[in-house]
Amino acid sequence: MATKILRATARDIRFPTSRTLDGSDAMSADPDYSAAYVVLETDHPSGLEGHGLTFTTGRGTELCVAAAKLLAVQVVGRTIEEIAADMSGFWRGLVGDSQLRWLGPEKGVVHLATAALVNAVWDLYAKVEDKPLWKLLSDMSPDELVACVDFRYIDDVLPPDEALEILRLNVATRPAREVEMLREGFPAYTTSAGWLGYSDEKIRVLAEQAMAAGFTQLKMKVGGDPESDLRRARILREAIGPDRQLMVDANQVWGVDEAINAMRSLAEVKPWWIEEPTSPDDVLGHRRIREAVAPIGVATGEHVHNRVMWKQFLQAGAIDFCQIDSCRLGGVNEVIAVLLLAAKFGVPVCPHAGGVGLCEYVQHIAIFDYIAVGGSLDNRTCEYVDHLHEHFVHPVRVEHGRYMPPTAPGYSAEMKPESLAVYEYPGGKAWTD
Amino acid sequence: MATKILRATARDIRFPTSRTLDGSDAMSADPDYSAAYVVLETDHPSGLEGHGLTFTTGRGTELCVAAAKLLAVQVVGRTIEEIAADMSGFWRGLVGDSQLRWLGPEKGVVHLATAALVNAVWDLYAKVEDKPLWKLLSDMSPDELVACVDFRYIDDVLPPDEALEILRLNVATRPAREVEMLREGFPAYTTSAGWLGYSDEKIRVLAEQAMAAGFTQLKMKVGGDPESDLRRARILREAIGPDRQLMVDANQVWGVDEAINAMRSLAEVKPWWIEEPTSPDDVLGHRRIREAVAPIGVATGEHVHNRVMWKQFLQAGAIDFCQIDSCRLGGVNEVIAVLLLAAKFGVPVCPHAGGVGLCEYVQHIAIFDYIAVGGSLDNRTCEYVDHLHEHFVHPVRVEHGRYMPPTAPGYSAEMKPESLAVYEYPGGKAWTD
Repeated sequence: MATKILRATARDIRFPTSRTLDGSDAMSADPDYSAAYVVLETDHPSGLEGHGLTFTTGRGTELCVAAAKLLAVQVVGRTIEEIAADMSGFWRGLVGDSQLRWLGPEKGVVHLATAALVNAVWDLYAKVEDKPLWKLLSDMSPDELVACVDFRYIDDVLPPDEALEILRLNVATRPAREVEMLREGFPAYTTSAGWLGYSDEKIRVLAEQAMAAGFTQLKMKVGGDPESDLRRARILREAIGPDRQLMVDANQVWGVDEAINAMRSLAEVKPWWIEEPTSPDDVLGHRRIREAVAPIGVATGEHVHNRVMWKQFLQAGAIDFCQIDSCRLGGVNEVIAVLLLAAKFGVPVCPHAGGVGLCEYVQHIAIFDYIAVGGSLDNRTCEYVDHLHEHFVHPVRVEHGRYMPPTAPGYSAEMKPESLAVYEYPGGKAWTD
Repeated sequence: MATKILRATARDIRFPTSRTLDGSDAMSADPDYSAAYVVLETDHPSGLEGHGLTFTTGRGTELCVAAAKLLAVQVVGRTIEEIAADMSGFWRGLVGDSQLRWLGPEKGVVHLATAALVNAVWDLYAKVEDKPLWKLLSDMSPDELVACVDFRYIDDVLPPDEALEILRLNVATRPAREVEMLREGFPAYTTSAGWLGYSDEKIRVLAEQAMAAGFTQLKMKVGGDPESDLRRARILREAIGPDRQLMVDANQVWGVDEAINAMRSLAEVKPWWIEEPTSPDDVLGHRRIREAVAPIGVATGEHVHNRVMWKQFLQAGAIDFCQIDSCRLGGVNEVIAVLLLAAKFGVPVCPHAGGVGLCEYVQHIAIFDYIAVGGSLDNRTCEYVDHLHEHFVHPVRVEHGRYMPPTAPGYSAEMKPESLAVYEYPGGKAWTD
C-alpha cells in the first residue's frame, strides 16, 4: 500500500533566544533561533506525517516559510514510494524549478526551504520504513545510496562509479560499526560554554560543568575585541587543561589577513581548529589562512550552501574539517553527496549543529557517515549545544559527551504540538505576551 | 535642504513572457520576466522619488518583495544626504542585519532584494543631484568612489589604497572619454536573435535585422540537443559572416566535462565566448573549461552573487569576461567594488542585461567603467535585448549597435505608472484577464 502526501503546511516558529544572548557570536549579536517548519500529511492508516525544518535566526523566517509553500506543490499528491523510487530525480526537480531557480540557484532562502521540504520527505520515508533515518540510510545498498544523489556539477570530480567504490569498500564492515555506535555513541563537542555574550565567570562555570558531563572538546566564540578573545580563551584553556581540545569560531567576522593576524595571538591557547575565519564564499582565502595558521586546522560549513561550493573547498585543499549543515544544504540527498565528496578527499566530517533541531538532525548524518561512508572516527566530532531540545518529541540523548543513536523512526526533528503553538510567530503566546 | 525618505513600498511586477518563449534558454524553459519594484517616497519639494528594482523570472518574485520590505526599515526616516555621506557604512548595515544575514549571507533572495533597495537609493541620489547615474559616478573623486565600497572580504586582494591608485590613473583622461561616450555611445551586442525556443527561420531573420540595425556581435543560446545547437550556430555564423562576433550561452546546463566536449563541436563556428558553461559556483570548474576551450573565451556573471565570488573567479584566472549584473550584486556599491577588482586583474567588464530594466541599468555601469575605472573599450561590449523597454519612463536608446548615454537624472529604471498597474501580480489586468 502506497502512502500518499495529501497536504503540506509550513509554519514560522521562533524562540526569543535574543533575550538571554544564547547563541550570540561575532556576527549574530541577537539571534532569535527559529525554524521554517514543514508538515506533510498523508493517507497512511496510522496517520504518519513527515516533519521537516530549516533553521533560521529570526527576521526573514517568513521568507523560508513562503518559499517552502511554493516548493511543496511538487510533493503534494505524490506517494512516498514514487519519490523514493527516483530520489535524485525528485531532488533535481525541486532545485530545478525554472522560475525559482533564478533566486538562487541552490542557495539562500529557496535552498533553505528546499532543505525543510526534503528533510520532511525523508522523515516520512523513514517513518514508513519504521526506522530512524541513520538506520534507513545505513541499510541501503551502495547503488541505492548513489541513486539518491544528483551528480550534476560534481561528476567531474566524483563520478557515480567512484562514489559506488567508496561505499562498497565499507559494506562488509558496516555491522561492526553499527554495533559500536549503538554501544558507545558518536563523539560530541559542546559550544554551550563559549557564547560571546556570556561573562567570564559564566563561561568558566559552564566549562567545568561540561567536563563533569563527560565532554573532552569545547568550542568558544571569538572575533570580538582581540584582548577579550585571548582572555576568555585563556580562561577556557586553563579550565579544561592541556589535553582536551579547544576550538575557536569567528563566525566570518574577519578578512583573510585579519584572520591570520588574529590566530597568531590565539595560537597561544593551542586551538584545534579555527572555524569560519572569513566569508564562506572565500575558498581561496580559506586556503591562504590554512597555510598560514597550520598546525591549527581550518573548519567551515554552516554557510557552505551546496555541493558545488563543497567541491571547491575540497578541491582547493582549503579546509581540514567539513562542517556539513543539514539545512544549509538542500536536505538529505545533498548531504549524502557531500559526505561522499569529503570521503574522496579524506577530509573528516564534523557536522554543524545547535540552532533549532540541528543536533536532532546531524546525529543521524554523523552516525551514517561513520557506518557507511567515511568509516572512521579519526578527527571526527559532532557539535552539541544544550538548547531547545525540550521542544522535540524525540530529543537527542547525549551521554558522557557522546550522541547515542536515536531509536524512534524518522529524522527526529518533530516538534511537540504545544511548542509549535506557543512559539508560532507572530501569533503564539511567546510573542503576544 | 536635506531630502528625507518618508516611505518605502515594494511591488510584484510580472510580464507574461513565457507565452511567447521570449527569454527561453537551456535552464529557463518558460520565464515570466518580472521585478521586485521598490519606490522611495520623499519630502523633496519636487516630489522626487527613488525607483529601484531587482530582476526575477516569475514565481518567487513575492519573496524578493517581502525581503525588500524587511530591509526598507533601514532607509525610511533617513535623508539621502546622510546616506550619501557614509555609503559604505549604509551598505554594510543592509547586508549585515544580524538576523537576515543567516538567509544568505549576501546571496539569494535577500541579496536580490538588497539590490532593489540600493538601486532605488542611488536613483534618488542621482535625481537629487540632477544627473544621470553614470555622470554622478563619473564626477566623483577617487576618494569619494572608494568610500562607497565595503572592502570587507576583498581587502586582502584589493586594499583601498590600491583601488585609489586604479581610479587616480584615469582621472586626467576622464573628460576625453566622456566626450567620446556622448558622441559615439558604448558598444552593444544583441541576444534577441538567439533564444532557444525560436525556430531556425526566426533566428535567421532576426540576425539579419540585427545586422541591419548596426550590431556586429550576436549571442545565441545553446545547451539543448547538440545537433540542434550546431545547426543553429551554423545558421547564425552564415548569416553574420566570418568577421562579426558570435557568442554562445549555455545558461549553466552542463557539467565541466560536458562543457568541454560540447565546445569541441561548437568550436567550428568560432565563438568569441562561451557564457555560463556550468554552475556559477564552480570557480575551479570554469578555470578547467577555460584552459580546455581556449582560444574561445569563458564568460560568466549573471549568477555570480557577490564581490567575494568575483574575487575567486578573478584570482583563479577562471574567466576572460566579467559579466557583472546590476541586480545579482547588492546594487551600485557592490558593482563599484567588482569593477575595481576586474580592473586590477585586467579582465574586461561586459555587463549582463536583458530581463526587466537590466539594459536600463547596465548602460550606466558600462559607461562609468569606461570613463573612470577600466578606461578601455578593448574586448568590452554590453548586452542588449530588445524587450519590455516600452514600460520605462526613460528607455534605453541603442543606435547603430551602441548604447547612447542616458541624459535624464537618475538610474533609468523607473517604470510607467500604467505599466506597474497593468502588470502587478496577481491583481493587474495582464494577469486577471
